[in-house]
Amino acid sequence: MAVYTDVSDEALRAFLREYELGDLLSYKGIAEGVENSNFFLHTSTGNYILTLYEKRVNAADLPFFINLMGHLARAGLACPQPVRNRAGTALGHLCGRPAAIVTFLEGVSLSRPNAEHCRALGAALAGLHAAGRDFPMVRANNLSVEAWRPLFVQAEAQADTVAPGLAARTRTDLDWLEASWPQGLPAGVIHADLFTDNVFFIGDAVSGLIDFYFACTDAFAYDLAISLNAWCFDADGTFHRDKAGAMIAGYDAVRALEPAEIAALPILARGAAMRFMLTRLVDWLNVPPGALVQPKDPLEYDRRLAFHRTATDARDYGWEK
Amino acid sequence: MAVYTDVSDEALRAFLREYELGDLLSYKGIAEGVENSNFFLHTSTGNYILTLYEKRVNAADLPFFINLMGHLARAGLACPQPVRNRAGTALGHLCGRPAAIVTFLEGVSLSRPNAEHCRALGAALAGLHAAGRDFPMVRANNLSVEAWRPLFVQAEAQADTVAPGLAARTRTDLDWLEASWPQGLPAGVIHADLFTDNVFFIGDAVSGLIDFYFACTDAFAYDLAISLNAWCFDADGTFHRDKAGAMIAGYDAVRALEPAEIAALPILARGAAMRFMLTRLVDWLNVPPGALVQPKDPLEYDRRLAFHRTATDARDYGWEK
Repeated sequence: MAVYTDVSDEALRAFLREYELGDLLSYKGIAEGVENSNFFLHTSTGNYILTLYEKRVNAADLPFFINLMGHLARAGLACPQPVRNRAGTALGHLCGRPAAIVTFLEGVSLSRPNAEHCRALGAALAGLHAAGRDFPMVRANNLSVEAWRPLFVQAEAQADTVAPGLAARTRTDLDWLEASWPQGLPAGVIHADLFTDNVFFIGDAVSGLIDFYFACTDAFAYDLAISLNAWCFDADGTFHRDKAGAMIAGYDAVRALEPAEIAALPILARGAAMRFMLTRLVDWLNVPPGALVQPKDPLEYDRRLAFHRTATDARDYGWEK
Repeated sequence: MAVYTDVSDEALRAFLREYELGDLLSYKGIAEGVENSNFFLHTSTGNYILTLYEKRVNAADLPFFINLMGHLARAGLACPQPVRNRAGTALGHLCGRPAAIVTFLEGVSLSRPNAEHCRALGAALAGLHAAGRDFPMVRANNLSVEAWRPLFVQAEAQADTVAPGLAARTRTDLDWLEASWPQGLPAGVIHADLFTDNVFFIGDAVSGLIDFYFACTDAFAYDLAISLNAWCFDADGTFHRDKAGAMIAGYDAVRALEPAEIAALPILARGAAMRFMLTRLVDWLNVPPGALVQPKDPLEYDRRLAFHRTATDARDYGWEK
């Protein structure tokens, strides 16, 4: 988490003249988000987040992300609402980078959510899927099953230096996932990165969902599988069936899961763990010199995969209907 | 600028239970300050800054810094006011580090202050010196003239790799500064690091002074000399006599400079430039692997020293009385 770009007061004031946000009172670079530079912004009209999109974000995808946040916020979801400038657009340029201002959301990310937090997250995720139903834009998921083999190829030769046997078990899993990946599940806009640090709570209620920069069009149940992985395991791989069951039930209460989605849950959960294990593995083996960001441990997801290999049924994830 | 320590919501909530600051609404790590980890904190009672003191700060000095901020704020200076906890102390512990909460100050640091901003800064600096007059604690300036030779010794052998002739001209300057450094000037609490990033403005008025972690007991005019160096030169060494004259006049209007201070201004300005050239040079030659902070260019201050060698009189700095 870092601020990659310094923004001078002069550059910011010039940028803000394109907006109707009143006088600048203060701004601070904040350590949030791995990919972009973010600033907390206080003006005479309120609190905002200013984001500068750094080079890891594809500028061609920005209209999808920005329009999606606007769509979801208008549909009542508690997510950042992009602020339009005087020209009517929410995407501008600052310090040579695409930049946007969104509304600030109160709330705190939980480091150790309990089962009731997971239930609330499941409901919020279903709410996101419902709010995105009529969003007209499409963005393919470029980190789904077709992307995993090319990621693995980059890391395969060095994988066993990270953990003995990692290359072989990953290869076996990949073969099975590619052969069995479900098709035709209910699909639409998914968040695709709803980890605990992207969900704010006030008390025990969800107060906001942030960071839509992996959002794409894919199976809704795959999004649930990503959050099951992110919220219901400890770093050592211990699975919390009570949390997972509460998350799935919370989701199902807002948007009823179809039988095909229930049946696919184990393979989706295994695939989601594979996706994060592989991207982390590639990053782990390719830390650039002078990196501002610590790479995340791929083995946290290798340990989750060990659990997923033992699961055969949604009941193994706490589904009880 | 970086956040060195992650603070979980659980650790923060436990810490906040020692305070009467209401409910936690949000917190963000902010990229401010080179030495410590800082968080913007919003609770139901207001906005605050939480600071965790990292290892470069001597814990034995913290009571001086914390008590000084409290003293100055009570005297009416716009500076962070430390918040006392239920036990009546403003210094606690969080994540294994000394930690304090101070009030949040609105305002924006100026990247290119003009002469009128420099006049306002001079007046604010004199206000700080006046507000600190009856502060009872003392902290020696451990980066004054006695500290420069040991710093230079660390860097001497490699200095010419940074700029040709740097070692020889620094040695000559040091000899002269040590032989001629003024004694007995009016002294008290000085900020000792009042660069533009430590001064907030709203419009053209100073709204706050921050970062008192170099504050110490030393000559008031030396503090003015530090700010003259920091505010009145471009990075290429160009001196702005109009800015310096305005800063000195702004200072003198609030606290009249004595003849001995006026006479000492050239040597104090040269010494202040030497202090920052030397600490930057040592940091420049000793960047640790994986450093989160870019070292600052020592040659910016080598170029200022070239100007100071040509100055003989306070008039060369714009003093016109």
